[in-house]
Amino acid sequence: MPSISEKAQLMPASPIRKLVPYAEQAKKAGKTVFHLNIGQPDIETPEVAREAIQNTDIKVLEYSHSAGFESYREGLSEYYKNSGIDVNKDQILVTTGGSEALTFGFMSCCNPGDEVIIPEPFYANYNGFATAAGLNVVPVTSSIEEGFALPAISEIEKLITDKTKCIVICNPGNPTGYLYSKEEIQQLGELVKKHDLFLFADEVYREFCYDGAQPFSVMQLEGLDDNVILIDSVSKRYSMCGARIGALITKNEEVMASALKFGQARLSPPTYAQVAAEAALKTPQSYFDDVIAEYVERRNIMVDGLNKIPGVFCPKPKGAFYAVAKFPVDDAEKFCQWLLEDFDYNGKTVMMAPCAGFYSTPGLGKQEARIAYVLNKEALKEALVCLEKALEVYPGKI
Amino acid sequence: MPSISEKAQLMPASPIRKLVPYAEQAKKAGKTVFHLNIGQPDIETPEVAREAIQNTDIKVLEYSHSAGFESYREGLSEYYKNSGIDVNKDQILVTTGGSEALTFGFMSCCNPGDEVIIPEPFYANYNGFATAAGLNVVPVTSSIEEGFALPAISEIEKLITDKTKCIVICNPGNPTGYLYSKEEIQQLGELVKKHDLFLFADEVYREFCYDGAQPFSVMQLEGLDDNVILIDSVSKRYSMCGARIGALITKNEEVMASALKFGQARLSPPTYAQVAAEAALKTPQSYFDDVIAEYVERRNIMVDGLNKIPGVFCPKPKGAFYAVAKFPVDDAEKFCQWLLEDFDYNGKTVMMAPCAGFYSTPGLGKQEARIAYVLNKEALKEALVCLEKALEVYPGKI
Repeated sequence: MPSISEKAQLMPASPIRKLVPYAEQAKKAGKTVFHLNIGQPDIETPEVAREAIQNTDIKVLEYSHSAGFESYREGLSEYYKNSGIDVNKDQILVTTGGSEALTFGFMSCCNPGDEVIIPEPFYANYNGFATAAGLNVVPVTSSIEEGFALPAISEIEKLITDKTKCIVICNPGNPTGYLYSKEEIQQLGELVKKHDLFLFADEVYREFCYDGAQPFSVMQLEGLDDNVILIDSVSKRYSMCGARIGALITKNEEVMASALKFGQARLSPPTYAQVAAEAALKTPQSYFDDVIAEYVERRNIMVDGLNKIPGVFCPKPKGAFYAVAKFPVDDAEKFCQWLLEDFDYNGKTVMMAPCAGFYSTPGLGKQEARIAYVLNKEALKEALVCLEKALEVYPGKI
Repeated sequence: MPSISEKAQLMPASPIRKLVPYAEQAKKAGKTVFHLNIGQPDIETPEVAREAIQNTDIKVLEYSHSAGFESYREGLSEYYKNSGIDVNKDQILVTTGGSEALTFGFMSCCNPGDEVIIPEPFYANYNGFATAAGLNVVPVTSSIEEGFALPAISEIEKLITDKTKCIVICNPGNPTGYLYSKEEIQQLGELVKKHDLFLFADEVYREFCYDGAQPFSVMQLEGLDDNVILIDSVSKRYSMCGARIGALITKNEEVMASALKFGQARLSPPTYAQVAAEAALKTPQSYFDDVIAEYVERRNIMVDGLNKIPGVFCPKPKGAFYAVAKFPVDDAEKFCQWLLEDFDYNGKTVMMAPCAGFYSTPGLGKQEARIAYVLNKEALKEALVCLEKALEVYPGKI
C-alpha cells in the first residue's frame, strides 16, 4: 500500500471537530445542544441575493472568467470604494471562499519552509492553509487580560528571521472579536515595510464593528501597495457561508498575476454563487443596521452574562461575532466535552470551541473557550444558565 | 518590494490563454470566431438541475458538510453503482470541481519533489496542480500515429524511479479523446501494484463514449482498492462547468481521511451548486442519448472533414469531445495565432488550442492542435471550410 504524504500527516484536524461526535451523541440522547461552537450565523441571507438565484435563467451553466465575473468585480470595486478602499476590478480576484484566497496568497508569496507570523489565538484553519503551502507558523501571543490587543511591535519584530515572509492578521478577529485600531494597523504597516514582508489581512468581518468603532483596512495604509494583501469573503457579510465566494485583493501586480495563474488552473469560481454574491451587493443598509443591532444585543447578553458567572472572565470585543472567555476549569477541552457527554440542565447543554486549538504555542488557552454568539437572544440566555449551572457541578472546577 | 514565490514563477500560464488577446482583437475587427479551443460545451444544462436552483428556498445559505451533502453523496453512490463502480458515500468527497479533487489527491499522496508519470499529450492544467503541490511531471509520450493509445507498459516502467509516487490518466482523454481499453487499464493496474504507486484517473468524460464503446473505470480494477483514486466532476456530464462540483473517490481510507482534512480547512464545497448537482442525478437517460447522438454527429463531421483536407491527419477518437489533428504547418501555435490575426474567410475564422502546451516534452506536438467539437453542426462545417481555405494560403504551410 503506497504511503500518504508527510503533508497529509501534518495536516491538522479542526480543533472544533473533535467534539462533533459528542454533540451527536448528546442529541441522540435527547439533549438540546446550543451551538456556540461555530461561526455559522442564523441570520437570513439578504432577500435580494436569494431572489437573484430563484430568478436565474442560465441555460448553459458555463465557467466564468477565472478572476470572476467582470460585472461582479466592478461592483466589488464600488463596494470597496464605499468602504474607503480604493481598488479597481483588476486588483480583485474572485475566489472560492476566503480559504482559496489565502491559499493562492500563500502559494504566490511564500516558499515552502518560509515563516508566517500570526498573532495567537487565531483562526485554526490558517494552520491548514500554511501546512498545505509548506509554511511554518510562528505565533506571537496576545493575552485575554489585555483583551487580545496587538502584542507590542517589539515582540513581533523579535520573531522576524530571514525565513519570515509575511504577517497574517484577522481584523476584526476570529476567535477573539478584537478590532485592531488604526494605530495598531499602522505599526504593523511600518514593520512589514521595514522588513520587506507581506501583510495579509483577513477582513471578512469588516461590517461587524460595534459601539461606533470603525474598521481600518490594511488597504488604507499608504505606501504599502506592494506589501498588502486583503483576504475577503461574502460568507459572514451576507450570511452566505455556503456560497463559497471570497476575494484576494492586492495592488501588487506581480502577486495578482501569480494568483491569477493559480486561478486559471482551477478554471473559475462557482457561477451560481457569483450571481448571488453580485446581487448581494445591492443589499440595503437597513439589513446591516438590523444585523448589527441584533449582534450588539447578543454580544451584550453573552459577554455581560458570562462576566456575571463566578470565576468567568470575558473581554468585551468590538467586532465579529465571537468572544473568548476564560473559565475556572482545569482544561476547557475536557470541560467542553463534559458539557456534551455528562451534563444537561433541564435537558439542555452548550457546545463551545475550546481555545487550545486556536493557539499555536502548546499549553496556551487551556482555560479558554470561544463562543460564537450566532443564536437568538433567548437561546443565548438559556445557554448562559446552562453554563452557570454546569460550573456549579463540573468536577474539574478550579 | 517583497519577492513572489518560486512556485509562482514556475506556475505555468494556460497554453490556451496566450491566444485570447488575439481572439478578442479578431472580434473587435468584426470577425466571427468559431471557438474550437475550449471544452465549454454549448449543450444545455439538464432542466431538472436548472429548475432545482429556481425552486431553491434556502433562507440561510449555510456551509454544507465538508465532504458534501450526505444526501448528494448517497445519490452519487447510486450513480456510480449504476456505472459499475461500487462505492459508498464515505468513499466520496465532494470537491469544488475536479480541480480541487486532484489538488487534494496530490497533496494527500505526494511529497514535494515526488514524480508523477502522465501520458502526454495531457490536460495542461495538470501541470498547474503538480506545480502547486511541488511535484515533477514525468511524461510518457503517446503518438498521434497510434491514435494516442497507451504507450507500451515497458516504456512507462522505464520511467519509474524511487521518486515516482503516482501515474495520472484521463479517460476518455482530454485533449486526445482516446478511450483506454479494459486491457490498457488492467496493465496500468498491474504496474502500480507492482511498484506500490497510486493510480489517479480523471474520468470526467465517462458518459462521452461512442460507437458502442464502454468505459472501464480504474475503480473496477480488482485488488487495487488502496492504489486507485478517481477524479470526477459534473462539469461535462451535465454541461455544468460553472457549478464547480467534483469529487475525489477512493477506497483507501488513509487517503480519504487526509483529503477530508484538506476539505475541512476550506469548510465546504459550494451549496447552491450541490443543490443543482444533486438534482442533476435525476437527469433522464434521454438527455444523455440526445447529447451522445449529437456529439457523434459532430465528431464525424469534424474528424471526417479534417481528414479530407489535404495534409491533415486526425485519428477518430471514441470518447470525450476533443480531437487532436496534425496540420501541414511549420508551427501550430503560429498557425493558430495567424488564423486569428491575419486570416478570415468571409469574415469568419477559427480558434484552436495548439498542442505544444499539452506535451511536457519540449518540441513535441508542434504541428498539432486540439479541436473541441462543442459547437453545433453548421458552425463546425463552416469552421472546416475556414480551415481548408486557411491552409491554402497560410505562409507557413509545409
